[in-house]
Amino acid sequence: MIEQPWRGFASDNYAGVHGAVLEAISRANVDHQSAYGDDVVTERAASMVKDLFGTQAEFYPVFNGTGANVVALQSLTERWQSVVCSGSAHIHADEGGAPEAVAGTKLWTVPTSDGKLLPADVQSQCFDMDFVHRAQPGAVSITQSSEMGTVYTPEEIAALAEVAHGNGLAFHMDGARLSNAVASLGVGVREFTTDAGVDAVSFGLTKNGAMLAEAIVVLEPERVRGIDFLRKTSMQLASKMRFLSAQFIGLLEDDLWLRSAAHANEMARRLEAGVRDLPAVQVTQSVQANAVFAILPSEVRKALQDRFHFYTWDQGTGEVRWMCAWDTTPQDVDSFVAAIEREIDARA
Amino acid sequence: MIEQPWRGFASDNYAGVHGAVLEAISRANVDHQSAYGDDVVTERAASMVKDLFGTQAEFYPVFNGTGANVVALQSLTERWQSVVCSGSAHIHADEGGAPEAVAGTKLWTVPTSDGKLLPADVQSQCFDMDFVHRAQPGAVSITQSSEMGTVYTPEEIAALAEVAHGNGLAFHMDGARLSNAVASLGVGVREFTTDAGVDAVSFGLTKNGAMLAEAIVVLEPERVRGIDFLRKTSMQLASKMRFLSAQFIGLLEDDLWLRSAAHANEMARRLEAGVRDLPAVQVTQSVQANAVFAILPSEVRKALQDRFHFYTWDQGTGEVRWMCAWDTTPQDVDSFVAAIEREIDARA
Amino acid sequence: MIEQPWRGFASDNYAGVHGAVLEAISRANVDHQSAYGDDVVTERAASMVKDLFGTQAEFYPVFNGTGANVVALQSLTERWQSVVCSGSAHIHADEGGAPEAVAGTKLWTVPTSDGKLLPADVQSQCFDMDFVHRAQPGAVSITQSSEMGTVYTPEEIAALAEVAHGNGLAFHMDGARLSNAVASLGVGVREFTTDAGVDAVSFGLTKNGAMLAEAIVVLEPERVRGIDFLRKTSMQLASKMRFLSAQFIGLLEDDLWLRSAAHANEMARRLEAGVRDLPAVQVTQSVQANAVFAILPSEVRKALQDRFHFYTWDQGTGEVRWMCAWDTTPQDVDSFVAAIEREIDARA
Amino acid sequence: MIEQPWRGFASDNYAGVHGAVLEAISRANVDHQSAYGDDVVTERAASMVKDLFGTQAEFYPVFNGTGANVVALQSLTERWQSVVCSGSAHIHADEGGAPEAVAGTKLWTVPTSDGKLLPADVQSQCFDMDFVHRAQPGAVSITQSSEMGTVYTPEEIAALAEVAHGNGLAFHMDGARLSNAVASLGVGVREFTTDAGVDAVSFGLTKNGAMLAEAIVVLEPERVRGIDFLRKTSMQLASKMRFLSAQFIGLLEDDLWLRSAAHANEMARRLEAGVRDLPAVQVTQSVQANAVFAILPSEVRKALQDRFHFYTWDQGTGEVRWMCAWDTTPQDVDSFVAAIEREIDARA
Repeated sequence: MIEQPWRGFASDNYAGVHGAVLEAISRANVDHQSAYGDDVVTERAASMVKDLFGTQAEFYPVFNGTGANVVALQSLTERWQSVVCSGSAHIHADEGGAPEAVAGTKLWTVPTSDGKLLPADVQSQCFDMDFVHRAQPGAVSITQSSEMGTVYTPEEIAALAEVAHGNGLAFHMDGARLSNAVASLGVGVREFTTDAGVDAVSFGLTKNGAMLAEAIVVLEPERVRGIDFLRKTSMQLASKMRFLSAQFIGLLEDDLWLRSAAHANEMARRLEAGVRDLPAVQVTQSVQANAVFAILPSEVRKALQDRFHFYTWDQGTGEVRWMCAWDTTPQDVDSFVAAIEREIDARA
Repeated sequence: MIEQPWRGFASDNYAGVHGAVLEAISRANVDHQSAYGDDVVTERAASMVKDLFGTQAEFYPVFNGTGANVVALQSLTERWQSVVCSGSAHIHADEGGAPEAVAGTKLWTVPTSDGKLLPADVQSQCFDMDFVHRAQPGAVSITQSSEMGTVYTPEEIAALAEVAHGNGLAFHMDGARLSNAVASLGVGVREFTTDAGVDAVSFGLTKNGAMLAEAIVVLEPERVRGIDFLRKTSMQLASKMRFLSAQFIGLLEDDLWLRSAAHANEMARRLEAGVRDLPAVQVTQSVQANAVFAILPSEVRKALQDRFHFYTWDQGTGEVRWMCAWDTTPQDVDSFVAAIEREIDARA
Repeated sequence: MIEQPWRGFASDNYAGVHGAVLEAISRANVDHQSAYGDDVVTERAASMVKDLFGTQAEFYPVFNGTGANVVALQSLTERWQSVVCSGSAHIHADEGGAPEAVAGTKLWTVPTSDGKLLPADVQSQCFDMDFVHRAQPGAVSITQSSEMGTVYTPEEIAALAEVAHGNGLAFHMDGARLSNAVASLGVGVREFTTDAGVDAVSFGLTKNGAMLAEAIVVLEPERVRGIDFLRKTSMQLASKMRFLSAQFIGLLEDDLWLRSAAHANEMARRLEAGVRDLPAVQVTQSVQANAVFAILPSEVRKALQDRFHFYTWDQGTGEVRWMCAWDTTPQDVDSFVAAIEREIDARA
Repeated sequence: MIEQPWRGFASDNYAGVHGAVLEAISRANVDHQSAYGDDVVTERAASMVKDLFGTQAEFYPVFNGTGANVVALQSLTERWQSVVCSGSAHIHADEGGAPEAVAGTKLWTVPTSDGKLLPADVQSQCFDMDFVHRAQPGAVSITQSSEMGTVYTPEEIAALAEVAHGNGLAFHMDGARLSNAVASLGVGVREFTTDAGVDAVSFGLTKNGAMLAEAIVVLEPERVRGIDFLRKTSMQLASKMRFLSAQFIGLLEDDLWLRSAAHANEMARRLEAGVRDLPAVQVTQSVQANAVFAILPSEVRKALQDRFHFYTWDQGTGEVRWMCAWDTTPQDVDSFVAAIEREIDARA
């Protein structure tokens, strides 16, 4: 039996919507507006995005993170090109094969231990360039913060950009949890995106308190082609777009997105702090954003999963993932830690 | 200069969101819920959909109408099959080539004068079945109410279903404006869908006061395959799905969707009544839903378009489309009619 | 019972291979050669193609006409673009939906009475350019000689090129029966391709005495992108390519391709001359290449189809297509005409 | 400077065509025949294929190995499914991304040391079945003989079939070098295909003395769907198919395919025997078919590649691949071994 009221650690997608987002939607709900993005709300959101990423930044709201990734990658590559990414990348492991199905794009994956691609990983895939038998790498995609809860430094990203561009590849960032990375690094988002050589970002706020707010932010307009057409063709163009854009406004105003992400990150650190000294629990990844990965005895895991929703990340090792959200409370964390301790003690 | 406050006749997508929808979203914003549709709000919406379409009906929320259409058509056809539709069908004329790009599906189109496909039109495409050189028809798709503001009767739909099924084709309905058809016909939605032999409906409420609420409703589960996988692969699976489902609840409760649609239809009839006796204006389609199509002198048209947003539908004839929305007021209509009269008089 | 030895009028694909082609293949069968086109035979064929089309011409052998068309169109367009063609175009009516399935490309078709597109037809599709809801025209494709046995003049092609390029569209020619057009026009192939503004040609010799010899010939290298990669990705790259190239050599040497095509055209004219005065037979198209289209009484048609293979082209009118091949003899034609007369007389 | 007359070890695709194949083509070049496979030559080849694989076997000639693989995999899977294969599989590493581009199919790869997939490798990918976020495995594809020159035993294949079918996956074999496997195993082809549970084979003879002869052979008709349509849609349907089929006849008659393959295999063993005792050469794979993989000092390798065409297989280790063909002579091998020895001695 799952406990009610529900407050779990399965996914930051399980959380609801921040009140400020609902308010922003209400404020946008005035009169008629042109559909498909030609509206004052989207204009305002685009302006806020430029403030963050630089004046060259272009803002294309879409429906979901997969949509942002696949449209961005199409706009950055040719029909015959492929994309280099980590084996744990969301586009590879968790999007149901959408990049292949919608865009016909092959992914060349490199195994990583912490979800972070290294320059040497990218270089390792840049062989047989111009050899028609090999699907030609056309872009690199990294995830910031990564699927393993780790965060690239601005320097690491700049080094990846250099090797990508040096080999003629475009450079994309899946920022479904971009907020958590900004909060973690304590620098402006521009430092590790625009200034580090990223060509386009999938900027997602859904996991950070929005209802559904994702966008492609183009940082290097020279690198993309046809993005407005591709958004339509890929079924990611919203008719009443003002209500997507309003969510960006609600979260970007007064840095709510960063305060919410900083809170989620802090809750993850609190959770890690609560379990790291338990001898039965092994934290497997550095906790840099809002995720904690850990291995714990399988009986303890199963007993906990009877009461709390969370995913077993690796069937082989039994590694689990615990996500903290913008609305996770210290009490939620403490209760969960206590429950873990009880289940361990019961088996000691 | 477009007049403010804005209340135009360009598109029912220009209207805002009904207050009941925002309330339903707020009501759904409680605690955590499983993502991707495994939540109590979606369960409730699915139950309401069954009440409307029959207990066999399955409910798959998606992001937009194009997504609903393309996912539905993929689930109804084989990889190598094609779809028969009207030349004015939204899937052909207005979706940027998404059916071809995402699903690789060819469309066989038949010209229609009023947007409505006839049984003979479908039959005319059912030749060379099993001849590999011809892309094999696998489904028929009709739009209800049609892109030309006309409405199929239950009998007309049943006759189309018979010819479709008789040739081994599945039968799909694009119901982006399904509400307006129900309100127009004055019968239950089931009479011209489930009971008439429709296999799957793209059921849209976005144009009728939702923010973004579209769904595939499967009426004949034996005819579809893999729809949950295809929704994911086609990038139409919402993480926080409860907020899409909530919009269905907000509009289906107390028949708000029908009251809103009936109002929009009435406003269209009021607009037609206002212009039909103007000698300079020729109404070109029967006004059965919430659209009015008309031809008027090009100078009048252009003068009006300087002040009001609306589309020239046919560049050749100068035919225009005026859409009424759930929030169009009698005064909006009367002011617009008066403006038309003034522009005509000014040139008389 | 179909008569033996077989010599029918169903398709120029029913004919065998010219002896000179087999000899050229044997001559190429010496030692090892690099695979995939890096061989001396392909080099020689490419040189002969340059002699025909101009020194800028690039030669990309592929397997079949559909492959040539779809690879060429991909190289000429962007992912999100569409292609304008006649409703009777092979890419639309007879390729099983390959352009849509393989390339995701929508086709905008215009009805034509004689298979030939007019400049106004192209212009009619060039509206809403830059409007994302309309699949954007990116190329025009015409067939020379056309599917209806008609031939474009160099002037007609130049006029089409002008309107295509004027609207920013590339211009492609499906030359599955290019030979027959050259023979019909009595001009060099360059006059109505390179010099008339064609960007890429699908140059087919299979129907003209080859075993399997099709190629994309790029005439305007600035207009295409990635054709060698697209050929591979589209599964049209032959490993032992020298044997495809050899067939081009065998047919291009000593103008065998033109002599064979001129013969086939002459046989079509002979057939037309034999039937045109029969009161029961109505020839429906101008006989400019190697096809004769005619309407004859349905009982006569059926009686003939019991003995000879040929296609009913239009189920509605009963129009049939008779194709003449490089190996059709005057006696074949005369016997067939006599058979037609007998069947007519038997019902008089 | 590459030596002439050319007789290299780069690829079995560099070899020419066996005289018996040309003769069979000539024999098929009589009169007219229906196009697209409805001809007596294809009927005869299909019958010979049934003799080999069993009476249920269906024969679908195509143009190349990539075409055979991609059409077969489409016919074995649903739109949303993926394919499990080795990381060294041709469909993954060497087909330019065609499975993704043409079929939209994701490949789940497992690293292997010898090119051979194990049952546990397949099982390792069969998790999260029915979880929409994971591209669902729908088929397993193995290569026999493998890309690394190794051969699966009938028992190994049966074990793979069991785990594939046990998980609801179809089972495909890429048999671009099927001949070499049959010759190596010394059993009937049926023993390790039909009888071992393979559902469909890509049966290639191009590398074994044909000009261009590949086919999908369906062994379990219940597992495939729409293969004739998919062959057309995927641009793999030959018009003058009799000339593809004739090549099968030329090679299958009198077991020429097996004698040629046995010879190529013997030449590979001779080559291995010639180099295995050279201290500077390390043979890296068991030589079970017609390939030898070896690591040799990079200066020796480069000096040899100045004179002979062959591929460096692994840029990291410097591993090379030497292929023997049906026309490789003992003298070719001995001369090559002598050249290797000379280059080594020159650096000793």
